[in-house]
Amino acid sequence: MNRLALTDADKNVRDWFVEEAKGLGCQVCVDEMGNIWATRPGMSTPSGLPPVMMGSHLDTQPRGGRYDGILGIMAGLEVLRSLEETGTKTWRPIGIVCWTNEEGARFPISMVSSGVWTGCVPLSTAHSLTEVFASGGPGEEKGGGRKTIRQELERIGYLGEQKCDWREMPMAAHFELHIEQGPILESSGKKKVGVVVESQAYKWFTVEVEGREAHTGTTPYNQRADALMAAAEIIRHARALGEKDGRGILVSVEVFQVYPGSVNTIPGRVGFSFDVRSASTEALSSFVSTLRPELEKVAANAQHNSLPCKITRWEETTDSPAQLFHAKCIAAVTQSALSVLAEEVGGDTKRAKELVQENMTSGAGHDSVYTAKRCPTSMIFVPSKGGISHHPEEFTSEEDCVRGARVLLEGVVRFDRD
Amino acid sequence: MNRLALTDADKNVRDWFVEEAKGLGCQVCVDEMGNIWATRPGMSTPSGLPPVMMGSHLDTQPRGGRYDGILGIMAGLEVLRSLEETGTKTWRPIGIVCWTNEEGARFPISMVSSGVWTGCVPLSTAHSLTEVFASGGPGEEKGGGRKTIRQELERIGYLGEQKCDWREMPMAAHFELHIEQGPILESSGKKKVGVVVESQAYKWFTVEVEGREAHTGTTPYNQRADALMAAAEIIRHARALGEKDGRGILVSVEVFQVYPGSVNTIPGRVGFSFDVRSASTEALSSFVSTLRPELEKVAANAQHNSLPCKITRWEETTDSPAQLFHAKCIAAVTQSALSVLAEEVGGDTKRAKELVQENMTSGAGHDSVYTAKRCPTSMIFVPSKGGISHHPEEFTSEEDCVRGARVLLEGVVRFDRD
Ligand SMILES: NC(=O)NCCC(=O)O
Ligand SMILES: NC(=O)NCCC(=O)O
Repeated sequence: MNRLALTDADKNVRDWFVEEAKGLGCQVCVDEMGNIWATRPGMSTPSGLPPVMMGSHLDTQPRGGRYDGILGIMAGLEVLRSLEETGTKTWRPIGIVCWTNEEGARFPISMVSSGVWTGCVPLSTAHSLTEVFASGGPGEEKGGGRKTIRQELERIGYLGEQKCDWREMPMAAHFELHIEQGPILESSGKKKVGVVVESQAYKWFTVEVEGREAHTGTTPYNQRADALMAAAEIIRHARALGEKDGRGILVSVEVFQVYPGSVNTIPGRVGFSFDVRSASTEALSSFVSTLRPELEKVAANAQHNSLPCKITRWEETTDSPAQLFHAKCIAAVTQSALSVLAEEVGGDTKRAKELVQENMTSGAGHDSVYTAKRCPTSMIFVPSKGGISHHPEEFTSEEDCVRGARVLLEGVVRFDRD
Repeated sequence: MNRLALTDADKNVRDWFVEEAKGLGCQVCVDEMGNIWATRPGMSTPSGLPPVMMGSHLDTQPRGGRYDGILGIMAGLEVLRSLEETGTKTWRPIGIVCWTNEEGARFPISMVSSGVWTGCVPLSTAHSLTEVFASGGPGEEKGGGRKTIRQELERIGYLGEQKCDWREMPMAAHFELHIEQGPILESSGKKKVGVVVESQAYKWFTVEVEGREAHTGTTPYNQRADALMAAAEIIRHARALGEKDGRGILVSVEVFQVYPGSVNTIPGRVGFSFDVRSASTEALSSFVSTLRPELEKVAANAQHNSLPCKITRWEETTDSPAQLFHAKCIAAVTQSALSVLAEEVGGDTKRAKELVQENMTSGAGHDSVYTAKRCPTSMIFVPSKGGISHHPEEFTSEEDCVRGARVLLEGVVRFDRD
């Protein structure tokens, strides 16, 4: 599944979602970030109480998977369908919000739209965010031909008029069902449902290293400032620093572009992204503050260069501190998980408790991390086979998906009644 | 200067060249590789003697330079202009051949068209050669949207009907004036002209490393098969092997693409090119035969991966053995260089000799390396400032360019009269 945000494929699934939601009697509204808000009226609707929302996203990574985000939206529709079919009336409106570009795969700020909603990401920053890859590939000049979020929202017809702002579109709560994307539920004795109480911190950086282009056949080793050799040493050094840090620092390097991209020209410039994470916001900050000076030394003295390279860009593009979720939402999810599982195991509450993993930390970021800053929020995790995500083999069984949807339904209803 | 082969910019300069050559009374013919053959008739023309050709190329690297190849063609035009203006008649026809895609920068076989002319590269291989970068950038599937040489020849109107074959388009000799692209002339006592007697051997490879995509935030270090970390170790190891080999092995890595190219997905696949050179064909062969097994070990056991990566592709895309040039052409160039310089220094032949660098080896490949297999060939080098090439700062002074053109003129005439 390749459904990068705001592509034609994304437009198609959005159109489908809007139809489905309208078919379930929802009011549908699109905001200026293209977030789709579908709400089913509640008994309090005339008095204007804010809705309880189930949020997640429909965009994917370039090569998968089929559950990350999508499960939360599909389950949300199933919850509304169940409420409709059983004629259940809720006190508050209950709805679904589909957040735009959660992955950050095409436009490199993850959860950018929930970030705008909370006021953490300025609308202008989000609208002018440009896609990671220009249409012409790495040989092109920087920025050439790249589309912005706003251009692509307009192109697919999802640039709404509604302000994307927590004060204008308030929520009573935000619940998100998501696949775990990691190995914990599966490896810790086959837990079935996870209650997420916090998310780890992460930062993204865009970095550029410059050396000097030269002819591969006529430039002796002692006259080279090979930006690729420098970058190779830099990224390995950063990983080694992360590994030996001891504070659970995860360093990864991904988007990686080498210029000018010609077989007989020694690379003169390399651009790449760092993704650095830790459960502790403080540990993360302290680690990254020492990272750049360390890596500048490597650039200047890389083992395979005689001439120095330089780090010419070091831009923090995402800063997502660790976030605690809300006790009331956590309680609603915990009780619902226990009740759903108890029913499954014939009322054996002790066994049910064993099947629920409480106090989980999310390794990934989610829109819930932002919404938690402005309204009561928590998340429900279901198992990911082999802990694999952002990969075509990402898989969660039908049974686990259904169970997650039931916990979501009960959690939302419980919160509403409380 | 960015004039990749067979782009619109290349078409423009070709059109200009054809006009110039026709204006000088040349017959112009385009062959099935888009090589342009412009010949000025000689006295022997009715009897069909093959022409003496001055060959080089008009395509460039993605970011430069303005002399590499272009000087040889411009000087060729100047030679023909001088012959015209002085009413000089030659015995054989004298001409210019503009070879297509010499750089190998856009279509990754360098000197591909002189390779076809000699019969070393099959026409079908050359015609179906695809450009290095797809229009959609690294996130795209392999091969998507890439153009072939044949498609681009057709598009710009330079797919000729003449067969590109040394038997059908024979040459009496091939002379090439070129900038040195390296530091030798400049650093060895300000030599002014180089007489090239051979070229070093080189091979190009396209390599792919596969690991497993995974989520950067949820995948612990001990569950990673990060293709980028493996590739970084592989290319550094290859460089280290080249450095310590002791047989003048130059290892470089350039075109480098990382998939899927998303900030929060650990890279699952990396593709890159190796360029490996040595003055000795045998040393080069023996070095590359040990390279792949060495690097496979690194892929499987990279320091920063707990799970193995694999080398899944190892394709030799260019094989250019070391080549000796022809004694008769070398003699014509040597005598011409000495005569041009003697004239400059007022007849002081001893001083003139000091200004000529004999017995040079070309570090770069040139179309002359192929033509030398089928007809007498040699090259003339002029200095490159700072030895810099394949870089916007590539520079050769006007004086050096003019001197080179004079040596070319005399060399061609000398060969013709001999
Ligand atoms: N759930 C998920 O993969 N979100 C993307 C944000 C992140 O990189 O953690
Ligand atoms: N002259 C030149 O840069 N030719 C390209 C072929 C090579 O890579 O050496």
